[in-house]
Amino acid sequence: MIERWLRFQHQGKTRFGTLEGEKIRIFEGDMFIDPQPTDMTAMLSEVKLLSPHVPGKVLALWNNFHALARKLELDPPAEPLYLMKPQNAYHNPNEVIRKPLCDGKVVYEGELAIVIGKKTTNVTEDQALDHVFGYTCANDVTVADIIKRDPTFPQWVRAKGFDTFLPFGPVIATGLDPAMLVVRTILNGEVRQDYPINDMVFPVQRLVSLISRDMTLYPGDMILCGTSVGVGSMKPGSTVEVEIDGIGTLVNGFE
Amino acid sequence: MIERWLRFQHQGKTRFGTLEGEKIRIFEGDMFIDPQPTDMTAMLSEVKLLSPHVPGKVLALWNNFHALARKLELDPPAEPLYLMKPQNAYHNPNEVIRKPLCDGKVVYEGELAIVIGKKTTNVTEDQALDHVFGYTCANDVTVADIIKRDPTFPQWVRAKGFDTFLPFGPVIATGLDPAMLVVRTILNGEVRQDYPINDMVFPVQRLVSLISRDMTLYPGDMILCGTSVGVGSMKPGSTVEVEIDGIGTLVNGFE
Repeated sequence: MIERWLRFQHQGKTRFGTLEGEKIRIFEGDMFIDPQPTDMTAMLSEVKLLSPHVPGKVLALWNNFHALARKLELDPPAEPLYLMKPQNAYHNPNEVIRKPLCDGKVVYEGELAIVIGKKTTNVTEDQALDHVFGYTCANDVTVADIIKRDPTFPQWVRAKGFDTFLPFGPVIATGLDPAMLVVRTILNGEVRQDYPINDMVFPVQRLVSLISRDMTLYPGDMILCGTSVGVGSMKPGSTVEVEIDGIGTLVNGFE
Repeated sequence: MIERWLRFQHQGKTRFGTLEGEKIRIFEGDMFIDPQPTDMTAMLSEVKLLSPHVPGKVLALWNNFHALARKLELDPPAEPLYLMKPQNAYHNPNEVIRKPLCDGKVVYEGELAIVIGKKTTNVTEDQALDHVFGYTCANDVTVADIIKRDPTFPQWVRAKGFDTFLPFGPVIATGLDPAMLVVRTILNGEVRQDYPINDMVFPVQRLVSLISRDMTLYPGDMILCGTSVGVGSMKPGSTVEVEIDGIGTLVNGFE
């Protein structure tokens, strides 16, 4: 069954629940561990959306799509290559991504994010999808010019770690087949990225399995699957949408 | 005034407090935001030490000591170069660091860790120390062979992000002058690292100021200052101590 989980502010409180059409059914407890339905509801139009949850950690893949590897003339990697995005980067749907104090081109990267549902250590590919709670849309915002400006140390974490540089949402959708998903990124109304998840070098179950051999993943931890062709820069005043059918559309401005 | 904050298990509960000799004065609330003393005490010998707190994020510096830069024939960097250590790596004093599933040499790196005390965004060097809560000892454990094995993407986060790869503690000491501190790392009873913090390329107030221009730091966030000469590998059965006068000694085995 497909459920769409979201977190929001409503009547001065932070709450979470499931979206059914325009109506939210409010739950209590922990979204990932036995959430309890209440008899409260709210209308989507009455609430302020927040990022659907607050991950303990976010890993972000680099060079995980064949189409982008070909364009950049890179070999597909032998193992998943990843960095981390810090908590200060987490950002809500519909809020403005802020240009950092430093100079440099700021680019959007529309991505599928995997949300882990259970403690996950050294699982097989066959077990992996049972440890996934669901999927959401993410914008892996990056100051591209920073990454390689020190010749001795690529600054991946810093370039992708500025405040507001990881909007995600609007919901976490459960029960989807990730191999069927398509990511579209729309800049100021124009489609710039439109790529299938089944072009991934490491598909979802392999990613979760391989990463779980290195690091224990906990409920809420997120893996950004990497991006494909069509990355571009945002100018102040831009609006970026990351849209995945079955999940929804993440919309953010940039100033 | 120098206080030494610690976190521990006592009578089946997780508690925190300050250490006075061998006696712990137990506090309640938030260690960083107006902690409240109680009339409860415990003896150090009665408790199981935990990492002194659970940071929201941990940044770790690379190439931040002149002595190590000289040895590696690297120029001191123009700006702080850092990666992140994930939450699954956080580890308690006196517990065993576990060899990961992958092959490769596992090295210790004794380091000073800065613990942030207040929300910190774009502060000057003059303001920076007022945003530091205190300092602790950290072992920035690393599978050295992983870092450069992919020629296109140095795997810093992965190499340093395995479960148990960040023991820290035993306490957070407040009121210290970081420029006066000396880090000693002792492997199986033999001193392997013995270096002064005042050899740092970016001293504490500069680090906090510069990083706070990129990322908002929150109470509990930690910055590992990087290591200096004397890094070496651990064999199963090894014991590693990271000792900083004024803070204490962090002891962990390796299996």
